[in-house]
Amino acid sequence: MPRKKEIIVLKLSGSLFFSKEFEKLAINLKRVLSKKKNLRLVIVAGGGQTAREYIGVASKLGADQSSMDELGIRVSQLNALVMSKALGNFAIDRIPTTLEELVEAFEVSLQGKQAVVLGGLHPGQSTNAVAALVSEKLRASLFLNATDVDGVYSKDPRKFRDAKRLSAVTPSELSRILKSESMKAGGYDLMDPVALKLIERSKIRTRIIKCDALTISSTLLGQNVAGTRIRFD
Amino acid sequence: MPRKKEIIVLKLSGSLFFSKEFEKLAINLKRVLSKKKNLRLVIVAGGGQTAREYIGVASKLGADQSSMDELGIRVSQLNALVMSKALGNFAIDRIPTTLEELVEAFEVSLQGKQAVVLGGLHPGQSTNAVAALVSEKLRASLFLNATDVDGVYSKDPRKFRDAKRLSAVTPSELSRILKSESMKAGGYDLMDPVALKLIERSKIRTRIIKCDALTISSTLLGQNVAGTRIRFD
Amino acid sequence: MPRKKEIIVLKLSGSLFFSKEFEKLAINLKRVLSKKKNLRLVIVAGGGQTAREYIGVASKLGADQSSMDELGIRVSQLNALVMSKALGNFAIDRIPTTLEELVEAFEVSLQGKQAVVLGGLHPGQSTNAVAALVSEKLRASLFLNATDVDGVYSKDPRKFRDAKRLSAVTPSELSRILKSESMKAGGYDLMDPVALKLIERSKIRTRIIKCDALTISSTLLGQNVAGTRIRFD
Amino acid sequence: MPRKKEIIVLKLSGSLFFSKEFEKLAINLKRVLSKKKNLRLVIVAGGGQTAREYIGVASKLGADQSSMDELGIRVSQLNALVMSKALGNFAIDRIPTTLEELVEAFEVSLQGKQAVVLGGLHPGQSTNAVAALVSEKLRASLFLNATDVDGVYSKDPRKFRDAKRLSAVTPSELSRILKSESMKAGGYDLMDPVALKLIERSKIRTRIIKCDALTISSTLLGQNVAGTRIRFD
Amino acid sequence: MPRKKEIIVLKLSGSLFFSKEFEKLAINLKRVLSKKKNLRLVIVAGGGQTAREYIGVASKLGADQSSMDELGIRVSQLNALVMSKALGNFAIDRIPTTLEELVEAFEVSLQGKQAVVLGGLHPGQSTNAVAALVSEKLRASLFLNATDVDGVYSKDPRKFRDAKRLSAVTPSELSRILKSESMKAGGYDLMDPVALKLIERSKIRTRIIKCDALTISSTLLGQNVAGTRIRFD
Amino acid sequence: MPRKKEIIVLKLSGSLFFSKEFEKLAINLKRVLSKKKNLRLVIVAGGGQTAREYIGVASKLGADQSSMDELGIRVSQLNALVMSKALGNFAIDRIPTTLEELVEAFEVSLQGKQAVVLGGLHPGQSTNAVAALVSEKLRASLFLNATDVDGVYSKDPRKFRDAKRLSAVTPSELSRILKSESMKAGGYDLMDPVALKLIERSKIRTRIIKCDALTISSTLLGQNVAGTRIRFD
Repeated sequence: MPRKKEIIVLKLSGSLFFSKEFEKLAINLKRVLSKKKNLRLVIVAGGGQTAREYIGVASKLGADQSSMDELGIRVSQLNALVMSKALGNFAIDRIPTTLEELVEAFEVSLQGKQAVVLGGLHPGQSTNAVAALVSEKLRASLFLNATDVDGVYSKDPRKFRDAKRLSAVTPSELSRILKSESMKAGGYDLMDPVALKLIERSKIRTRIIKCDALTISSTLLGQNVAGTRIRFD
Repeated sequence: MPRKKEIIVLKLSGSLFFSKEFEKLAINLKRVLSKKKNLRLVIVAGGGQTAREYIGVASKLGADQSSMDELGIRVSQLNALVMSKALGNFAIDRIPTTLEELVEAFEVSLQGKQAVVLGGLHPGQSTNAVAALVSEKLRASLFLNATDVDGVYSKDPRKFRDAKRLSAVTPSELSRILKSESMKAGGYDLMDPVALKLIERSKIRTRIIKCDALTISSTLLGQNVAGTRIRFD
Repeated sequence: MPRKKEIIVLKLSGSLFFSKEFEKLAINLKRVLSKKKNLRLVIVAGGGQTAREYIGVASKLGADQSSMDELGIRVSQLNALVMSKALGNFAIDRIPTTLEELVEAFEVSLQGKQAVVLGGLHPGQSTNAVAALVSEKLRASLFLNATDVDGVYSKDPRKFRDAKRLSAVTPSELSRILKSESMKAGGYDLMDPVALKLIERSKIRTRIIKCDALTISSTLLGQNVAGTRIRFD
Repeated sequence: MPRKKEIIVLKLSGSLFFSKEFEKLAINLKRVLSKKKNLRLVIVAGGGQTAREYIGVASKLGADQSSMDELGIRVSQLNALVMSKALGNFAIDRIPTTLEELVEAFEVSLQGKQAVVLGGLHPGQSTNAVAALVSEKLRASLFLNATDVDGVYSKDPRKFRDAKRLSAVTPSELSRILKSESMKAGGYDLMDPVALKLIERSKIRTRIIKCDALTISSTLLGQNVAGTRIRFD
Repeated sequence: MPRKKEIIVLKLSGSLFFSKEFEKLAINLKRVLSKKKNLRLVIVAGGGQTAREYIGVASKLGADQSSMDELGIRVSQLNALVMSKALGNFAIDRIPTTLEELVEAFEVSLQGKQAVVLGGLHPGQSTNAVAALVSEKLRASLFLNATDVDGVYSKDPRKFRDAKRLSAVTPSELSRILKSESMKAGGYDLMDPVALKLIERSKIRTRIIKCDALTISSTLLGQNVAGTRIRFD
Repeated sequence: MPRKKEIIVLKLSGSLFFSKEFEKLAINLKRVLSKKKNLRLVIVAGGGQTAREYIGVASKLGADQSSMDELGIRVSQLNALVMSKALGNFAIDRIPTTLEELVEAFEVSLQGKQAVVLGGLHPGQSTNAVAALVSEKLRASLFLNATDVDGVYSKDPRKFRDAKRLSAVTPSELSRILKSESMKAGGYDLMDPVALKLIERSKIRTRIIKCDALTISSTLLGQNVAGTRIRFD
């Protein structure tokens, strides 16, 4: 029984939440879902500023690393809840907290509501890795990683004037770029090693784009080829 | 098999979280728990500022009342998690999300860790009502309601210079005070009708105090009789 | 993706269960559901006589108020199970025990079976409040409260010959009537304060009718305007 | 880490509930538990009259066998809840609904409360079989099956004057007696084949006694050797 | 709302797993499901060789009977998971572990995926009994019990040359055959008493066939009337 | 309330299961636990040969990477169950399947049984990473990683005669060794990047030893300093 639905996994940078952009994006996503009835969207929310605040308080009071991971996950799930509420009738009401629950929610969404929203799932695993895991599990046709930058650069664009945005990178090139000294300094979380390993082993079609309302919606509608895609030789 | 443990339920105003007072209170509570080994503390966290922010965003995007209740509950549970982390080895790790889970966590805590922390449980029910429900369920020897004010006044203290703090009120007097016009204006959430009904039907020993670190810890240690107690004729 | 389904929440008085009327109602409801394929019915069962018996035994043996609430909830859930069995293929098999489970069951029911049945959910909250909560959550087009009386009266109809059934009341009028001395004496549970607060805040379209098979089915079919509706000025 | 606790599983006939005997038994059990601090009691409640009523209603409305099993289980769980409330602080608050939950509850009870109460667990399995399963799982030192009769008879005591109560039977003798025509007619549920098979394979020490307060409490205290024991050659 | 789906419950012998036949069967089942879009298949997997290995290790180390049941159940659930993966998009992803979960999964499958796969559910209950229980619960139109033999014989076919395969047996005839000495020796698990009781009480249409890919698929397609059916006089 | 228990996390190589060594280890572990009453042992089981078999079958039938992860997790949980059964009364009965469940089981174990056994938890995460995560979460005093080799070597010991076992390595040295070509060829899973990151960020005291019964038990008893420890500069 092959499904005709188009499945896209969208990772949203935590910095989106509570910015002006959030509201715009919610409106754009509703418009996209109205237009493309066969689209099934799984949205993975990051933690962002609220996560940093809660973790900061816990850290000052002597909490361990594992507890801070846990706080980060809870905040990302709260962000997921707000996004789900913002999408209203387009989104499944419940925020899955395990991969099994995600699959069940998605199963239900196939027959009705077009979107499922989740946050982090498991300590020791970034929301990027969660998004890659979900893409693999649901055999998504696209993993759209919306980050604070508009793609992958040859060098750190904040340092080097001649840094160029790459239209495509292989997983091993990306791995090398992420490890290079200059990237560490900047510290922007484009992708983590676990996510990259999953993308590579299952050849997940992936694109890294800027996390703004217009870029995301036009990419979802296929009107835009911004950002950097991951290619497999 | 009558237990010799002293069980106290402490409701914390949501405004405590992320204030300077929070850190002080966490330190004080650890000190109290070290001193009184037979004390079992169940802490109920309110939602506060973060709750208002999340609800504000959802509201602007058209979410319904029930969804906002849900967001409020999740934030109070997040606050509970931070408090639990701040108490370290004194608190059970998991935040109960139903009354059944609370009872089970408490059962476990009887043999070891001295504190259980929770937030809201159920839409349509304030965290004050949750705290009263828990007090009734665990037959707590005291329900300590730490609020933004330091007790119950004969009139609105922000309006009337001759308002006097009452040392004791009956449930029906409190009910009348809460309904009076002047109180509505102020809008401080001392107690809600459901909580009051539970306090009355099970004659729960209750005291309303100011939510600051010193008042709370000295009251827990029995060194203080501040605030207003509820009396049953 | 706006839904075209008509969602009605029906609260059934606990006194219905094990009366002759129960069987008739089950048959009528099946007929209504066959006729109106776009109707989605969420039924909330009260506790009734069995609840009173179980609570009576527990009370005699010294159980606390909270335990009695719990027994009441379990019995109402058992009543819900019998109703669900009586509706056969029209009803979802599982009785939700939290609001989250209700929403999930309803989500599934949207694609297939037309009815979900539940009982109480949470101590300290009447089944009336549950029904109001569910109505708010699912944005029901109607909350039908089927009680032991056939509507709201200006005075206690058992005492005053000139008592008149009102065709409509505002939430605050109803609140006043419920609190008046004469009503307390009679003690019939038309509506409780939490339910009323929810109805008011979300302007839930509500009607109070007599809990008999004919009144309920004809009201569901829109052939009847019996009882008292709640109006918002 | 061998435990020194004495573990007894007590199956209570459903007919006990809501009889005068129930209240007496609850009081006796509390007394026994106070005396024997090392006793851990797992009580399995049957369904009885309430079960028959609920099943009767469902049957009249066309419910299938599986649904009736389910109703029977729910009622036995409700009976378990009442017994647990009647035992107050001696019993774990939560009624386990799977064998896993029973083991977890028992684990907790080892450190504190002395009793766990449960009802049926799974369709197609009698509460007798549940009690045998629990006895096997917890390696109970005794399975006490309290039934409507005071032991196993050589013939149906209601028909034959010369019927004699047997002091001991082997599993295969009991199996033969249960299958004989005369027993079927009487229909009293001494033991079912699944329970017998479990008793036999794990050589569970078992005794069949009359379900009255005095017989049960004196047997628990070791002051009584009434009824029929199962012996293994 | 009567459903037009044809519901078949298929019990697979544990010996199938990891044999050559397994792969063939998976391919055949996919073909059958493609052809018969209105077919809903619930597959119950047995434990087989892996179960025997795990149980053997545990037994040598002194585990009790109940623990071995548990291991058998887990292995059958693992076998179920492999079958579910082998059916790819035709099967619900999650393996139900209680009857309630099975019903929920089936509910979802009614709208989309055509197959649900499960293993054992509960200690003290064979996978044959599980399959009968599921057949009863879902009111399946057929319970297909695929075993190591190709039907029920008048005598043990491995001992007696004149043993004849019966085209039909009544539950009581089958019960008698299963109990006869010669059958015990062979020990093949055609059916157990609990399963038979369920088949009898709900008159479940049942057929016992050989567990090979061709027999199963042709029986599902209605092209084959091999094996022995159970008849009710 | 600082605990005086010594907490050790022991990762067992999947290759142990169903080898002769397994039985010996179970016996040794029981002896160790009898001797050291204050020891709390959390055992993480790998998947081994059975995992490879199940994954092999699924792979041949076209299952995706995520499904194979899932099969590997289930098999490791089955191995955990066998180990738990082999430890009898020393181990908690239930196998945790999430980090939350692990913490709860451990909480209970603090008061009684000395061991908790688990397998994998989450797709995309090796059982090594699980063991590191658990060590971090429980603030274990030691993470003992029992693998197929007896420590970390300067070069691949199967290729180079002059390879030397190192008594200690830093996380970054180990990371470099794991990435070197020769190691990949051998493919033995000493440690994965996620586990290493956790060890590093929380400075978890870690030792890599040979997975045989004698080495493990003598290391647990503090009589042995075999293998390679991870050191933090």
